[in-house]
Amino acid sequence: MSGGPYVAVVGSGVATGELYEKAREVGRLVAKRGGTVVCGGLSGVMEAAALGATKAGGTAIGILPDEDRRRANEYLTYSIVTGTGHARNLAVVCSGDVIVAVGGEYGTLSEIGLALKLGRPVVSLESWDLGEYVIATSSPEEAAEEAFRILRKG
Amino acid sequence: MSGGPYVAVVGSGVATGELYEKAREVGRLVAKRGGTVVCGGLSGVMEAAALGATKAGGTAIGILPDEDRRRANEYLTYSIVTGTGHARNLAVVCSGDVIVAVGGEYGTLSEIGLALKLGRPVVSLESWDLGEYVIATSSPEEAAEEAFRILRKG
Amino acid sequence: MSGGPYVAVVGSGVATGELYEKAREVGRLVAKRGGTVVCGGLSGVMEAAALGATKAGGTAIGILPDEDRRRANEYLTYSIVTGTGHARNLAVVCSGDVIVAVGGEYGTLSEIGLALKLGRPVVSLESWDLGEYVIATSSPEEAAEEAFRILRKG
Amino acid sequence: MSGGPYVAVVGSGVATGELYEKAREVGRLVAKRGGTVVCGGLSGVMEAAALGATKAGGTAIGILPDEDRRRANEYLTYSIVTGTGHARNLAVVCSGDVIVAVGGEYGTLSEIGLALKLGRPVVSLESWDLGEYVIATSSPEEAAEEAFRILRKG
Repeated sequence: MSGGPYVAVVGSGVATGELYEKAREVGRLVAKRGGTVVCGGLSGVMEAAALGATKAGGTAIGILPDEDRRRANEYLTYSIVTGTGHARNLAVVCSGDVIVAVGGEYGTLSEIGLALKLGRPVVSLESWDLGEYVIATSSPEEAAEEAFRILRKG
Repeated sequence: MSGGPYVAVVGSGVATGELYEKAREVGRLVAKRGGTVVCGGLSGVMEAAALGATKAGGTAIGILPDEDRRRANEYLTYSIVTGTGHARNLAVVCSGDVIVAVGGEYGTLSEIGLALKLGRPVVSLESWDLGEYVIATSSPEEAAEEAFRILRKG
Repeated sequence: MSGGPYVAVVGSGVATGELYEKAREVGRLVAKRGGTVVCGGLSGVMEAAALGATKAGGTAIGILPDEDRRRANEYLTYSIVTGTGHARNLAVVCSGDVIVAVGGEYGTLSEIGLALKLGRPVVSLESWDLGEYVIATSSPEEAAEEAFRILRKG
Repeated sequence: MSGGPYVAVVGSGVATGELYEKAREVGRLVAKRGGTVVCGGLSGVMEAAALGATKAGGTAIGILPDEDRRRANEYLTYSIVTGTGHARNLAVVCSGDVIVAVGGEYGTLSEIGLALKLGRPVVSLESWDLGEYVIATSSPEEAAEEAFRILRKG
């Protein structure tokens, strides 16, 4: 399979300070381990993960909700334009071999729900507390480690 | 606006016994109050809500994930066929002026997330515990009452 | 199967004069024959077909592209809100047991393509000239007759 | 804007012999001119375009209809998994700055319709005859040349 493994990084479109840094670090660590970051392509956590991945020499693909790529963040290697609004969340989740949720608002909750529905494993970092359904971690390092531990198991 | 108010009843495709009865009662009470039930059109909670609504003389519209209506439950008044898989969850949520989550598995979690993202109010009955983000109720009567209280406020 | 047969009436969102009248007549004739009209829910041919169907005592369901039903035309019996933009064209087509294209611009062309892809029969009235792939008709009466001839054959 | 320009190559999932070679040549010429190929990710024209692009050192991104990437052709650089069935056609079209239709069956017709609806220019090579709405060409060279002439104009 080409281009993988794919790590979907999901989270709020608004993220500053510490949360932005954590998402960036997740993106960086995913790239360092050879993973491709897929995300929603906009700002906040999506932008931070793309920035982290591409600054580390990796690839970040943004999957946008609009009908054009004008709102794509500037750090993406490639952008995919779905034209289907929030239904693009399904594409982000389906495209990830594993999902890492960083922080997160309501859209992130919908993505975690879809991921679980589809049987994709979810690693969470300061995201929704959903008990045993997600793998809670407390740092970008631990999140990346858990994600790749899952990928190795297949 | 024609056909409304619309109450989206979401929940697991597998429901038996008490949960099925509760979903049926929610459907019945929505119809009795003049609401139109929209749901995912398949089995479990979706079927129970449609059964309750239509037996009470109301209308239930199922919004299906497949490319044809073969899996539609038999109690729907009308079925809509989206052809977009789990992206039909977005259509169910968008179509509800209020969302009532009855029980619920992962798909329901994704629907609650989408509803909150879109600013649709969510009433929950034995569903995901998401704190203050949803209006938790303990009976079909209370769920229907809360749903219509919200609709009256507009 | 409840609510059917379903006749999807597709066509331009801008229609006036003769074309509007023809779409209205198609809606009326579908309703008179016991069919449910499904359409894209907006203006032009979609509005005309809904008007024709509901004035004749029938049912018209609009499947909207937006995240809310504000742009729904006023003649719909029910409106479904997909939130998926032009991907709602797929839902309109999937929901029709037969498709009637009245006039038509580019979106209509995409709907005819999807219908053919999915094996749904297409009756055309002053729409795209696609040779033997669609059943060309020259009046609303002929279009409705052809649509129901197809439905009877199953 | 990163990763572009993007050329969406659309066409039948079944293509052999001459048509396959032509699609491969289109992919190769797009890559040679610095474009990124986006396609539906499956077999036939989609596979041929990906093969042509990646063998020439370029990038091909496949946008798949399924919920996983198992059916992705082996020549893609990256695969995006939408989970939305034929609604992924909208994503393919939205992702292209220009669309090149090679041969083509019904799905291709729907993609041309969506492209025109969205204002994306369409170059056709042995595809649907739609008069002045598409730019008809008679060889892969001419198709690639026309596509990049359009891209230069912006």
